[in-house]
Amino acid sequence: MIPSSRRGPTPMNSVTCHISISLDGYVAGPHQSIENSIGEGGMRLHEWVFATHGWRAQQGLEGGESSADSEVVDRLTQGVGAYIMGRNMFGGGHGPWDPSWRGWWGENPPYHTPVFVLTHHQREPLAMEGGTTFTFVNDGIESALQQARAGAGESDVAIAGGAGTVQQYLARGLLDELFLHIVPVVLGAGERLLENVGDPTLEPVEVMASPAVTHVRYRVVR
Amino acid sequence: MIPSSRRGPTPMNSVTCHISISLDGYVAGPHQSIENSIGEGGMRLHEWVFATHGWRAQQGLEGGESSADSEVVDRLTQGVGAYIMGRNMFGGGHGPWDPSWRGWWGENPPYHTPVFVLTHHQREPLAMEGGTTFTFVNDGIESALQQARAGAGESDVAIAGGAGTVQQYLARGLLDELFLHIVPVVLGAGERLLENVGDPTLEPVEVMASPAVTHVRYRVVR
Repeated sequence: MIPSSRRGPTPMNSVTCHISISLDGYVAGPHQSIENSIGEGGMRLHEWVFATHGWRAQQGLEGGESSADSEVVDRLTQGVGAYIMGRNMFGGGHGPWDPSWRGWWGENPPYHTPVFVLTHHQREPLAMEGGTTFTFVNDGIESALQQARAGAGESDVAIAGGAGTVQQYLARGLLDELFLHIVPVVLGAGERLLENVGDPTLEPVEVMASPAVTHVRYRVVR
Repeated sequence: MIPSSRRGPTPMNSVTCHISISLDGYVAGPHQSIENSIGEGGMRLHEWVFATHGWRAQQGLEGGESSADSEVVDRLTQGVGAYIMGRNMFGGGHGPWDPSWRGWWGENPPYHTPVFVLTHHQREPLAMEGGTTFTFVNDGIESALQQARAGAGESDVAIAGGAGTVQQYLARGLLDELFLHIVPVVLGAGERLLENVGDPTLEPVEVMASPAVTHVRYRVVR
């Protein structure tokens, strides 16, 4: 294992995003569909997570690696008080909501905080088990951020994805931190992360490396 | 400075490539031309080099930073016994050679080894000052590699660029190591490195990080 190293604290109440990205810049593979939102080969971006002790422990499983990757997994949910996600990440297809669709994660989703879902279609909030509530926001990303900040209190707001949602927050100058998990696979096609984001100034403030993944935390400089 | 860390030695007589790459995967900016082969904004990928003590010392200049970046610069030419480059990197336009064109670097180029230039047009070898000789190879990349290996002896062969040349060696399974200098700028357009390379298996074997750049050395796994 390559030892971890860090520079500088995360500012309080930051707007953060962490996301796995291929070496050629994709966060999902080609031919995404409602059934396969991650695209062909896209799961290769996430296998490092499943190998960690931290992730397995969260699932009630034994074993797994205790590595820099595991340390990263342990940290990802720490200090997050609310999430924002695009509609595709919540699922349920396009157009007006089918109220029977309650997300991909079952009755006890892994968020345990308020989650704000960007949508063009109104829907009543959905309270789930374990502290997760889904609130559907149809008046824009700034409104969603304002509501998420209020819901998060002094904790951070995390942009959960997908790429289009991250792009909008980054392009609008609303993201404080981008934590990339750079996975050494070449997908060749799919959904790129860093398109339509303008020319942000990014400063690497922390690098953690394992034989599987290079994790680089970038501060978005204003 | 983030401390450097390393895992595993470079194999002897490797075929290596080091190249600066933007966070969105470009190794040159848009609107490349014969006059501006690096493209618009492309120089931003290389500014980290000019800031180092190591580069300045090579130019006979004082000062500069002694950082992980400087350590990387010092290492880049160590152990390299021959270079291979595409014709655009040597310059002089397209078509049959104008013998008055002797490269971008003056009479004493910074290579100080044999350099093999890929071309479709015959040209006699060109011996420069300081140990650099340019040999023009017009029978393919494998021939160039064979000649470069012979010229390098027990030292490494470095693919100097540009992107198309790196892509060909990587796609053909002839590259042993890819050392990426990941620069946190978003160019938005330009020449991508990791296109048309198939699906190589890359293993991060060393990570060195500075506040400016994250350097990741990948072994290409056979």
